[in-house]
Amino acid sequence: MPRPLSEICPMLNLPTRLLHGPGPSPVAPSVLEAIALPCIGHMDPQFMRVMNEIRAMMQQVFQTENEMTLACSGTGSAGGEMLMDNLVEPGDTCLIGVNGVFGGRLAEKARRAGGSVQTIETDWGKAFDQDVVIQRIEETKPDMVALVHAETSTGALQPFDRLAESVHRYGGLLVMDCVTSLSGLPVKIDEWQIDAAYSGTQKCLSCPPGLSPVTLSDRAMNKVNNRQTPVNSWYLDLNLVGNYWSGSRAYHHTAPVNMNFALHEALRLVLEEGLEARFERHERVHRQLKQALLERGFSYASDPEHSLPMLNLVQFPKSVTDEAGARRRLLDEFNLEIGGGLGKLAGKCWRIGLMGHGAREENVAAILQAIDAVI
Amino acid sequence: MPRPLSEICPMLNLPTRLLHGPGPSPVAPSVLEAIALPCIGHMDPQFMRVMNEIRAMMQQVFQTENEMTLACSGTGSAGGEMLMDNLVEPGDTCLIGVNGVFGGRLAEKARRAGGSVQTIETDWGKAFDQDVVIQRIEETKPDMVALVHAETSTGALQPFDRLAESVHRYGGLLVMDCVTSLSGLPVKIDEWQIDAAYSGTQKCLSCPPGLSPVTLSDRAMNKVNNRQTPVNSWYLDLNLVGNYWSGSRAYHHTAPVNMNFALHEALRLVLEEGLEARFERHERVHRQLKQALLERGFSYASDPEHSLPMLNLVQFPKSVTDEAGARRRLLDEFNLEIGGGLGKLAGKCWRIGLMGHGAREENVAAILQAIDAVI
Repeated sequence: MPRPLSEICPMLNLPTRLLHGPGPSPVAPSVLEAIALPCIGHMDPQFMRVMNEIRAMMQQVFQTENEMTLACSGTGSAGGEMLMDNLVEPGDTCLIGVNGVFGGRLAEKARRAGGSVQTIETDWGKAFDQDVVIQRIEETKPDMVALVHAETSTGALQPFDRLAESVHRYGGLLVMDCVTSLSGLPVKIDEWQIDAAYSGTQKCLSCPPGLSPVTLSDRAMNKVNNRQTPVNSWYLDLNLVGNYWSGSRAYHHTAPVNMNFALHEALRLVLEEGLEARFERHERVHRQLKQALLERGFSYASDPEHSLPMLNLVQFPKSVTDEAGARRRLLDEFNLEIGGGLGKLAGKCWRIGLMGHGAREENVAAILQAIDAVI
Repeated sequence: MPRPLSEICPMLNLPTRLLHGPGPSPVAPSVLEAIALPCIGHMDPQFMRVMNEIRAMMQQVFQTENEMTLACSGTGSAGGEMLMDNLVEPGDTCLIGVNGVFGGRLAEKARRAGGSVQTIETDWGKAFDQDVVIQRIEETKPDMVALVHAETSTGALQPFDRLAESVHRYGGLLVMDCVTSLSGLPVKIDEWQIDAAYSGTQKCLSCPPGLSPVTLSDRAMNKVNNRQTPVNSWYLDLNLVGNYWSGSRAYHHTAPVNMNFALHEALRLVLEEGLEARFERHERVHRQLKQALLERGFSYASDPEHSLPMLNLVQFPKSVTDEAGARRRLLDEFNLEIGGGLGKLAGKCWRIGLMGHGAREENVAAILQAIDAVI
């Protein structure tokens, strides 16, 4: 007997949110069209073509020629774990910058991969002075150095352009978390000689969450291919996943096919706009929001010299006495999602995202209209 | 300068395939509608409601009251790894049944989790005699016993109803891979006293690939909560993921929101049809295909007493001298995907899936029409 319909929950009927928290970000209509294309097989030659096009487009967005550029079949956190699991062997010295939640997570993942982790720390909201990092590299001679390019928990932007030389001098690998920066700020993998980087789809790429773009240099893949110990993870083992994305095309796991359709379209929109135009748009819209927030008594909590355009860490005016209640009103009355503070900053700050498809003048206007009602 | 459009690959334009391989399976239109709903935040109270409804529906499909029932944010292989990583501590004795590719993968994942793995083996295409397994359990007193309910590589159906007592007598946990069986065959988690099971969305649930339904008993969660060593994986650590799906609702990772929308609708369709009716439909359509294939000179390669209805492992007639070429013609000329043999069976068998939304009379007719053209 089929169950009576009344006992089964109805089809989803959800509000349309304005997504201006730390991600997910608003998704363009054509990306939602792409995700709903009829599914095809993960070994279908047509899907291999989709994967090839995704890789070629990701190479452009990462500004790299790395062959090993792929979409890891999990969210950004899985991409970070893929890099730590594959690049860290038990006992490897890992120097990891912790100036927010996501640096701390990288350190934890490196530890679970067996790494001997040393952290370098600075105040939340600040970036690391590259000279200070280089000094620590000279002292530590680490096998891996990992920093977060765009700390989603603090809004800090980490310069990366001068680190590689000292990392490589001691045979180490330079790893970057660019979850929140990719396609919203320059991420110059080859020029900065980054050995491995991972991102997420749900930030400036404006694709739903579910995949993690990753890229690895030949130097990094050399480490992976010559490991003395098996990778902790079978699902994320680049010796296996890499063969599915290039090389022998051997079956490994069933790729999230429709998520890849969405990523394909999201990347296409990025390249159609052009990276420079996209960076400029993020910066321009950020300045509009910033000026308007300062006029309303907000202050920026991140280092003004090293602030992200796509993620605004702000202290709200004193008139806001119940910050969680105010955010709840934004959501309930205006369908506006913004982020609260994370970790040490919980209850103290708001995080307002202007990412990808959402980094537009009309979105700034909608954000301000809603915020004016609750401050 | 934006790049000229001509340099950028065009929007996806893909053939509509008839998906009758080992998965992904055909996706119902309303599931594709659900996956394309506007994204909402992973911490949005509305998404918490979606997660709660998914859990409640998965409990019905798994036939369990397990609180720890959730959609792991990766494909089926990630779900299997989640169970091995969380349930196996270094040195644990794991008895794992290997009668096909997927049992072998479970063994590999248990090894990477630090388990001392013993395999029990039988011919590919055969199921294990439960008495033989019980005998090995008596000898080994393992901490974990894991078997594959529906071996997607061989079409074998593994009985599970008599194993738990002996596993539990020695304090072990009974784990089931039900990737291909869930919602196509009875999976009675509570009645059979299975401690942990994982599935995939892209088989009989007829949802695109990208999530893995998992369920764990209190006994299994007791093991997770009292581990002496950290879980290898941070992304799959049930101490963290579990808090996001229930309990404190603490942020862990950004869930694949739109994939969860799709799973919600796919589960709804399963319950609307009713489990028994769905099982009966899979069996009925399987018999239609089987009779027609036998008439055409195909033979079934899996044990006739223990064969899956949703995955038909067949030897093709002798007239097929180029099996890969024949499958390629099915794909190119008829948009029909069927599977080749996997592992030991590569080149020797075909795998024809009749799963979920694709287990219909009209699909059988389309399969036969296409096959008649190439045999």
